[in-house]
Amino acid sequence: MATITKKELIDQIADATKQKRVVVKKIVQSFLDSIIVELGKNNRLEFRDFGVFEVKQRRARTAQNPKTLEPVHVPPKRTVKFKVGRLMKQTLSDNQPAQPAQQPPQ
Amino acid sequence: MATITKKELIDQIADATKQKRVVVKKIVQSFLDSIIVELGKNNRLEFRDFGVFEVKQRRARTAQNPKTLEPVHVPPKRTVKFKVGRLMKQTLSDNQPAQPAQQPPQ
Repeated sequence: MATITKKELIDQIADATKQKRVVVKKIVQSFLDSIIVELGKNNRLEFRDFGVFEVKQRRARTAQNPKTLEPVHVPPKRTVKFKVGRLMKQTLSDNQPAQPAQQPPQ
Repeated sequence: MATITKKELIDQIADATKQKRVVVKKIVQSFLDSIIVELGKNNRLEFRDFGVFEVKQRRARTAQNPKTLEPVHVPPKRTVKFKVGRLMKQTLSDNQPAQPAQQPPQ
């Protein structure tokens, strides 16, 4: 298990697509930036086979300051959920790492 | 809230980077494909500011066939977790959608 960075992936893609590294870098960065911008607008991003990014909203609520017992406004919070797409799911199930303790299905 | 597809994002990126649509398409597809391949190898992908993709493993276990009571092997299952990066988190908290019911923090 290794950690792959954006830089390593850009090198891979430049090799695979025979495009200049500088062009690949610009496009990959623009792609990642665009996703952030779209999620910021509450938009959902659907990449067939890959997966879906969508914003989940936690509603604002009123909590209590435990010392003063005064009501405190907790602002709404947004986070991103990623849902695994079909091809990714299939790749993950096909390439199960070898497990010595694993037994064949019965 | 709209759903943005890969095609729409590719058009945006082609405009923003002044690259040919066909080149952008090839690079974006290669990027998404590479992520799937790396996750298939159980690698973790870290894109600064954007977020982290990593594989979560559910261990194999032995269950029971409820009819025959025979033990049944349940194979290990892998799924992908996406952890939101710094810039994405910040963008989501900066651009809170207007909420009529929202009150100012106290």
